[in-house]
Amino acid sequence: MPSYLITGTSRGLGLEMASQLSKNSENLIFATARGAPTPALQKLIDGSSGRVVYVQLDAEKEESIKSAVVQVEKHLNGKGLDILINNAGVMPFALNGVATMDNLSSTFSTNVLSVHLVTSAFIPLLQKGTEKKVFNVSTTLGSIAHAATYRQMPAPAYAVTKAALNMLTVQYSLGYEDQGFTFIALTPGWLKTDLGGDAADLPVEVGAEATLKIVQERGKEDTGKFINIKVAGWEKAPGRMNYYDGEEVAW
Amino acid sequence: MPSYLITGTSRGLGLEMASQLSKNSENLIFATARGAPTPALQKLIDGSSGRVVYVQLDAEKEESIKSAVVQVEKHLNGKGLDILINNAGVMPFALNGVATMDNLSSTFSTNVLSVHLVTSAFIPLLQKGTEKKVFNVSTTLGSIAHAATYRQMPAPAYAVTKAALNMLTVQYSLGYEDQGFTFIALTPGWLKTDLGGDAADLPVEVGAEATLKIVQERGKEDTGKFINIKVAGWEKAPGRMNYYDGEEVAW
Repeated sequence: MPSYLITGTSRGLGLEMASQLSKNSENLIFATARGAPTPALQKLIDGSSGRVVYVQLDAEKEESIKSAVVQVEKHLNGKGLDILINNAGVMPFALNGVATMDNLSSTFSTNVLSVHLVTSAFIPLLQKGTEKKVFNVSTTLGSIAHAATYRQMPAPAYAVTKAALNMLTVQYSLGYEDQGFTFIALTPGWLKTDLGGDAADLPVEVGAEATLKIVQERGKEDTGKFINIKVAGWEKAPGRMNYYDGEEVAW
Repeated sequence: MPSYLITGTSRGLGLEMASQLSKNSENLIFATARGAPTPALQKLIDGSSGRVVYVQLDAEKEESIKSAVVQVEKHLNGKGLDILINNAGVMPFALNGVATMDNLSSTFSTNVLSVHLVTSAFIPLLQKGTEKKVFNVSTTLGSIAHAATYRQMPAPAYAVTKAALNMLTVQYSLGYEDQGFTFIALTPGWLKTDLGGDAADLPVEVGAEATLKIVQERGKEDTGKFINIKVAGWEKAPGRMNYYDGEEVAW
């Protein structure tokens, strides 16, 4: 019975991943949200036969994280946590150019510091788990090498903090690979969610399925990598800005 | 008479760059420090025939930056600022591993947010300048691609924030290249300073000279790049962890 903890499950990718995982009766999913469950999350929980467990978690607050660890540990009843998916994140804009960006610190706190605080707090439970896998949801917009491709995207704080998240992922990977851990930064694709908007490439169901494929299939041999989802029909091609080829993304 | 503003000139690389630049009587150097000038900076100012001007600047505080801009603008007397070197930075440790890191937010504030605040505040003066060049002092430890090389270095907050600084540099480069600006992230080498320690590769004089060579010689055609200093005898070679070859560093 593999256990997952996913942050940011109120909506979008996090909710959809929890939903898809809950279809397998062997899975146990801890679904976290900062506030009370949204109606969509509550519906998922109610129909999950106990497989989706709500955990209140403000990922930027150490006290909240500590309480969440206690709750998860109790529920696991002596077992470890197998897989952590750090999914919560924000993408605020700076519509008048990078020099007007007034949300760099708050975005760093939500997109990077929170991942560090949650990961470090759950390490002891992950050490007792059978998988020892941590996936950090990043983005191709966090690729410094590809930054020029996305120059029309007025989200510099998102880009800067996701590049930082990528380095954090690698620092954890280096620190824990001798304990058999896997830390991977992944790009879930540009998805039709509240964050991605209607013009996005893929339905959230497709992005979640492709993301979970990485979560299931990738392990120690891929630790420290930055991996793109793979979606049929979205292979790399001339003139295509976004592609989903399952390969590593340049930092 | 090219004008420079260098942050973090109390000691180390910043002080040495200000010192070397002051030997050219055509230069005007605004040397900033958070507190009162250190004895070494005061000595440099006193012997500079007015070419080194002390500017109090706490790069994490917007009010302090505003005052500094007013002071610099007054001194320039209608001219623009030609070159900005964001040099101030810290390298705190997490000696018991990445999960114990308790300085991520404060390091981000000093190494990244400060660069954003200072750069955005000085943009109007730089727009009036003749060079329009901004150099952000980064490090090979901020290269995600090379992170495994430096795995023994217990400075994850430094690595994470310098990767973020690299992306910030590229975001500014993309935002201002159509105005003829140059934004470059550079690695000054591992220098024998308070930050680098005695075991470092190069005397600070050598690192400062090589850094200023990049500042003088690189321009628009290199905007958005991450550039290593070049030092004779330190070319890339098998088994050499650090090398100073003047080439681009992988992100």
